[in-house]
Amino acid sequence: MQSVFLEDIDAETYAAYITQPHATLIIPAGATEQHGPHMPLGVDAMLSRAIAGVVATKLGSLVAPTLSYGYKSQPRSGGGNHRVGTTSLSGATLSGQVEDVARSFIGQGFTKVVILNGHFENYQFIYEGLEIAVGRAREMGLDARAMLLSYWDFVDEETLEKVFPDGFLGWDIEHGGVLETSLMLLLHPEKVDMSRAVNHPPAQLKPYDIFPEDPERTPASGCLSSPFGASAERGKLLLDAVTNGVARAIEDEYSLSLESLAVR
Amino acid sequence: MQSVFLEDIDAETYAAYITQPHATLIIPAGATEQHGPHMPLGVDAMLSRAIAGVVATKLGSLVAPTLSYGYKSQPRSGGGNHRVGTTSLSGATLSGQVEDVARSFIGQGFTKVVILNGHFENYQFIYEGLEIAVGRAREMGLDARAMLLSYWDFVDEETLEKVFPDGFLGWDIEHGGVLETSLMLLLHPEKVDMSRAVNHPPAQLKPYDIFPEDPERTPASGCLSSPFGASAERGKLLLDAVTNGVARAIEDEYSLSLESLAVR
Amino acid sequence: MQSVFLEDIDAETYAAYITQPHATLIIPAGATEQHGPHMPLGVDAMLSRAIAGVVATKLGSLVAPTLSYGYKSQPRSGGGNHRVGTTSLSGATLSGQVEDVARSFIGQGFTKVVILNGHFENYQFIYEGLEIAVGRAREMGLDARAMLLSYWDFVDEETLEKVFPDGFLGWDIEHGGVLETSLMLLLHPEKVDMSRAVNHPPAQLKPYDIFPEDPERTPASGCLSSPFGASAERGKLLLDAVTNGVARAIEDEYSLSLESLAVR
Amino acid sequence: MQSVFLEDIDAETYAAYITQPHATLIIPAGATEQHGPHMPLGVDAMLSRAIAGVVATKLGSLVAPTLSYGYKSQPRSGGGNHRVGTTSLSGATLSGQVEDVARSFIGQGFTKVVILNGHFENYQFIYEGLEIAVGRAREMGLDARAMLLSYWDFVDEETLEKVFPDGFLGWDIEHGGVLETSLMLLLHPEKVDMSRAVNHPPAQLKPYDIFPEDPERTPASGCLSSPFGASAERGKLLLDAVTNGVARAIEDEYSLSLESLAVR
Amino acid sequence: MQSVFLEDIDAETYAAYITQPHATLIIPAGATEQHGPHMPLGVDAMLSRAIAGVVATKLGSLVAPTLSYGYKSQPRSGGGNHRVGTTSLSGATLSGQVEDVARSFIGQGFTKVVILNGHFENYQFIYEGLEIAVGRAREMGLDARAMLLSYWDFVDEETLEKVFPDGFLGWDIEHGGVLETSLMLLLHPEKVDMSRAVNHPPAQLKPYDIFPEDPERTPASGCLSSPFGASAERGKLLLDAVTNGVARAIEDEYSLSLESLAVR
Amino acid sequence: MQSVFLEDIDAETYAAYITQPHATLIIPAGATEQHGPHMPLGVDAMLSRAIAGVVATKLGSLVAPTLSYGYKSQPRSGGGNHRVGTTSLSGATLSGQVEDVARSFIGQGFTKVVILNGHFENYQFIYEGLEIAVGRAREMGLDARAMLLSYWDFVDEETLEKVFPDGFLGWDIEHGGVLETSLMLLLHPEKVDMSRAVNHPPAQLKPYDIFPEDPERTPASGCLSSPFGASAERGKLLLDAVTNGVARAIEDEYSLSLESLAVR
Repeated sequence: MQSVFLEDIDAETYAAYITQPHATLIIPAGATEQHGPHMPLGVDAMLSRAIAGVVATKLGSLVAPTLSYGYKSQPRSGGGNHRVGTTSLSGATLSGQVEDVARSFIGQGFTKVVILNGHFENYQFIYEGLEIAVGRAREMGLDARAMLLSYWDFVDEETLEKVFPDGFLGWDIEHGGVLETSLMLLLHPEKVDMSRAVNHPPAQLKPYDIFPEDPERTPASGCLSSPFGASAERGKLLLDAVTNGVARAIEDEYSLSLESLAVR
Repeated sequence: MQSVFLEDIDAETYAAYITQPHATLIIPAGATEQHGPHMPLGVDAMLSRAIAGVVATKLGSLVAPTLSYGYKSQPRSGGGNHRVGTTSLSGATLSGQVEDVARSFIGQGFTKVVILNGHFENYQFIYEGLEIAVGRAREMGLDARAMLLSYWDFVDEETLEKVFPDGFLGWDIEHGGVLETSLMLLLHPEKVDMSRAVNHPPAQLKPYDIFPEDPERTPASGCLSSPFGASAERGKLLLDAVTNGVARAIEDEYSLSLESLAVR
Repeated sequence: MQSVFLEDIDAETYAAYITQPHATLIIPAGATEQHGPHMPLGVDAMLSRAIAGVVATKLGSLVAPTLSYGYKSQPRSGGGNHRVGTTSLSGATLSGQVEDVARSFIGQGFTKVVILNGHFENYQFIYEGLEIAVGRAREMGLDARAMLLSYWDFVDEETLEKVFPDGFLGWDIEHGGVLETSLMLLLHPEKVDMSRAVNHPPAQLKPYDIFPEDPERTPASGCLSSPFGASAERGKLLLDAVTNGVARAIEDEYSLSLESLAVR
Repeated sequence: MQSVFLEDIDAETYAAYITQPHATLIIPAGATEQHGPHMPLGVDAMLSRAIAGVVATKLGSLVAPTLSYGYKSQPRSGGGNHRVGTTSLSGATLSGQVEDVARSFIGQGFTKVVILNGHFENYQFIYEGLEIAVGRAREMGLDARAMLLSYWDFVDEETLEKVFPDGFLGWDIEHGGVLETSLMLLLHPEKVDMSRAVNHPPAQLKPYDIFPEDPERTPASGCLSSPFGASAERGKLLLDAVTNGVARAIEDEYSLSLESLAVR
Repeated sequence: MQSVFLEDIDAETYAAYITQPHATLIIPAGATEQHGPHMPLGVDAMLSRAIAGVVATKLGSLVAPTLSYGYKSQPRSGGGNHRVGTTSLSGATLSGQVEDVARSFIGQGFTKVVILNGHFENYQFIYEGLEIAVGRAREMGLDARAMLLSYWDFVDEETLEKVFPDGFLGWDIEHGGVLETSLMLLLHPEKVDMSRAVNHPPAQLKPYDIFPEDPERTPASGCLSSPFGASAERGKLLLDAVTNGVARAIEDEYSLSLESLAVR
Repeated sequence: MQSVFLEDIDAETYAAYITQPHATLIIPAGATEQHGPHMPLGVDAMLSRAIAGVVATKLGSLVAPTLSYGYKSQPRSGGGNHRVGTTSLSGATLSGQVEDVARSFIGQGFTKVVILNGHFENYQFIYEGLEIAVGRAREMGLDARAMLLSYWDFVDEETLEKVFPDGFLGWDIEHGGVLETSLMLLLHPEKVDMSRAVNHPPAQLKPYDIFPEDPERTPASGCLSSPFGASAERGKLLLDAVTNGVARAIEDEYSLSLESLAVR
């Protein structure tokens, strides 16, 4: 295949691919959300798609079109849903979209589906849609399996220490911070403008949510921690950790063999 | 702005854009669907996004991330939902997605929204979601307006005659035919392989639908008419007709002025 | 049976009917919508029911109670949803109603179901409900088949030329025009008052929709084309074309034999 | 107006009607359900529509198209949902239909809406839809009021004694019994075949429901009590009691005046 | 087991219980609703739970956590939904909750499920959820059965005469009256303050509902009949009648044997 | 008031309470889920209710009836949804329940609502329901505010060190471990049987989810970490940390004053 991206290949090639025993489909899930003044609104969608692409190349998988809109941004893990640029789906729509899309692919013959999440707040609603889709497919007698993961959960301790030499404070405040900025500097450098990046201490978040949101409680930059310290080199460390980890997990779960795939 | 695509710009630039009186948002809606052996699965998403991009450049509009999955393909206007490669949303999910996304953008301050459709079967479900979103926004006292269009409805008679010199048989059978192939040859030539195109007479479709679908009733190619005759030149004629027509319609509805915008 | 209308026959007769190999059920779908000053609000429901009755008589089918409320009227194919007299269902409710009703009838033993549509805007939402109902029934192992059609799609070229001697401009603008008025003059003449009919040129519709609707863009009469030229004779030509065409299509799909049925 | 039935009048007459201070709309709600071997499947729809027609004539009201399909028949008040001929909506669809239809009519200007129910099992789901529709309309600042009633609740004691001289056993077992049969003998005698009526003791129902239903627990006739004793005369007593009672209740609630209306 | 309440036992004991042939689960359904000045808001939940507990003790059943919130209180059977203290679910949420919970328990192996209702307005929405859950489970090949009952339907004539020596006026007006107050005086005497009870004639209810509700039409006390005459002794009569009746019905339906169970 | 539990107080007392400026409502949300062989199925509901009760006593708040059923247990934070004893709601039902209940209470006049969560997997679905309820209430012009918290997020570092002297491994694996067991030993000691507790190393969880769940991947005990080390004393440390922290947060957000409340 000339591309790992499903939208780029034709139906006959696609049909032939599905019949192969190692056929695996990765669906990236992102969001359209503000990421501070130094990064574009599409960060979550771009990163989940790019990471899925690297993993797919390693494994001989296909990557489905990205779910570009995500669940409501929450102040405890993102900038908050009130911010301009943050465009959100309701939980029901996101779960429904995942259910429909997963069911379509399973119905076409995929038995190995992966959703690779790149927006913190999406996880539970994707879980719900995927649980229903796989459950229903199996009730119908189809052989269906799926995995769900958020890519940052595959960054290992060693990489963390290198990327955050001053200490790592948690993935929840990495919205617009070193993690995402480093990956963007590596993968889409032309879409990052570090001259506009704002340096500020990490957001001091309350351990609860309030409704309506209070815009005063998250940094004016829209980021929950400073992107200073981000670099393409750190992006490379992160990308390698994530894509190796994810590829290995998929390989394990679906009994793929990276070696044998390398020669396809 | 460096890009007309919303996902490429940062939140502050975006926030400033919305406050301008001519601020207009175009949301492309496509599908992930087989388009014969000579074209990729993403044709509908690619074309609606590319056309939206040209129109946005003319008008100084922004283009939102594409709705990449569409309503179930129907034999009377597409290859049919049974075909491998055709990945579909239920009507409720598509309408819900449109409602949520339109409501988000209207809530952020857009008063001029356009959905540019590139997949025949989507229209009514987008209509439903948009009607609800605009209706609810206006009940809340927001100044909200929206337009919905399918791009092929802007091809004029003169262009039709040039592109289909042997006579035009209707948009419904243009799935995978001269229209889409010509536009793809112009806009994404590297994704078209004319050597794999199949020449066959136009599909003779029944004037009704049956359930379950009968795969025998549509051509094995997955196209409803032959792409032979498609060319980048014809693609240019089509693109010009469509983008000029759509831009003029948006201009008329939203009282924009192409001239004044040209200098932004 | 004394009547082709299901609501008129008793449960035992009905139960016996279903066991016959040719048992076929036709469900008319209409709307409650303004049709100009010369015709009543129930035109779509009345015509779909009457046409279904004629077809059922030809085929020995049964006609279910009409779905009397339809999807929102759209300016490009009806008067628009803003008009007084136009009473509409949401897409979800219409699809749900079709799904529930079709599932009930299939569950009772019908394997041959037809929905005969008489309101342009209904089609996709009926399609969605029917697709789900048949799909689910088949997943459960039931032998279920269904057809969906809009009656005007069965008017042949020859009839078109006779009914529209000055040229036919498309079914979309036939709302309240010659087609519907002629059929009403034939089938329910006492409900038409031609003295109140308004003569005006065909609506010049834009090739897109706007939200909110603009009442100024469709003729004040509520009709999209003039009913002048309508007559019971033309209604007869239309009715014959439609009912013969529909009966033949059902016969073909469901392997009925008109001859053998004639003697029941 | 030439007819009290909304579907029979034209949009202009209808629009003028709504502006009158006494304008009142009655929506009949029935079902499509077996009613024993002596009566047709449409009894509930026919009776609710006919009773609404008489009340509307008394009050100068309009009658909307009947909701012809109802909620699942239950053994404790009907024949049970398992019976052939019983075609049912889910609760969500019925509530949604009521909500949509009521909202449409309120949106067109009706401030006085009545739903006249003729199928026992419908009541709560209609209540839900109507409560939501009126609640939402009032939130939007519309002056909306509605009534919901089942027609048999207006039979007074004196009439009960005349119609059931041997004692009245409760409305729940009147499915297919003396009440409905007498009204049908009066209003649609040609659709009743008393020679097929089955005489049997009243159903001895358990004070609870079981799932799945047990067909053995309700009489094989499909009726919960015997129709013997039904007559058009008793139908007249019932009709008068019901229509007078309902008309008076509407009059009271909506401050109409029967006298003044009589001369319209 | 040390408790009949499922929430009090551990998972292993629970798992062992389900494998027993007589394993039966009773789910109480109540409401959170005003019950006059002399009784607490939780009456419906408390009574359904307590009655389920007594029945479960007789039968060796388990009692699931109570559904504590119910459908909207209606003036014809409760105080009305407008009253402070009355907290309600929509019909869809209540049906969904019943469907989900019943499906979970059936999926865990229960073949004998009972829902014991203690709030008049809940019945139809519980019915809908239970019908769907059992129907779906059986489609999947599971052996699932369920019962649905309101506890007051098991009070026999003899008990009625003792508890209401001046005549019984119907369960619908027993909201906050002698039935509920007597049971509370027996089961939760510390939560009743008879010194605050208000004596007033039974509510004279209209045989229909109006929207919006009119607070003037139900007694200011929030009760539809006077609690005077309530006593723990009458509570005992009622409790015995109800629990014996319900236990016998479950025993009959599910072929349990009270004697054999007594020795467990 | 004699009780902080809303279900125990009468409507008049409740109505008077709401009018007080400090009136605050806490809604506990739990689950019905296995918690190993040493603890009962109701742990999450019991703990959230008990903690809410202590906080309410401190603040003069009311506690609403507990949401006793929760979202599907997930292996990464609970035992997994496949385990016997784990009874779950779909995401839509849980969000719907929260939306309905919050809307009811806000509609009755509460401006200060808190949901206190005790089941990890619930959080996002409660968030969704609460976000919608508060958003809609504010659109209607109501003064509505809400907070959402999980109680364990209020355990401070100092307490953590005392309760987990060997190091704290994360809340996600505290399902059935020291946290919950200690709190149960303090609050409901009679419902814990430490002789049945299983000692095992903490679950080694994968950083992703798979569908269908694999029962082999979580400990057979159903707990994700060992309850050994749990004690009532540690429960007291935890309870104090949590209730003080939660009370202070509510006080801060809602400008209550603990001192002034003490004398009510």
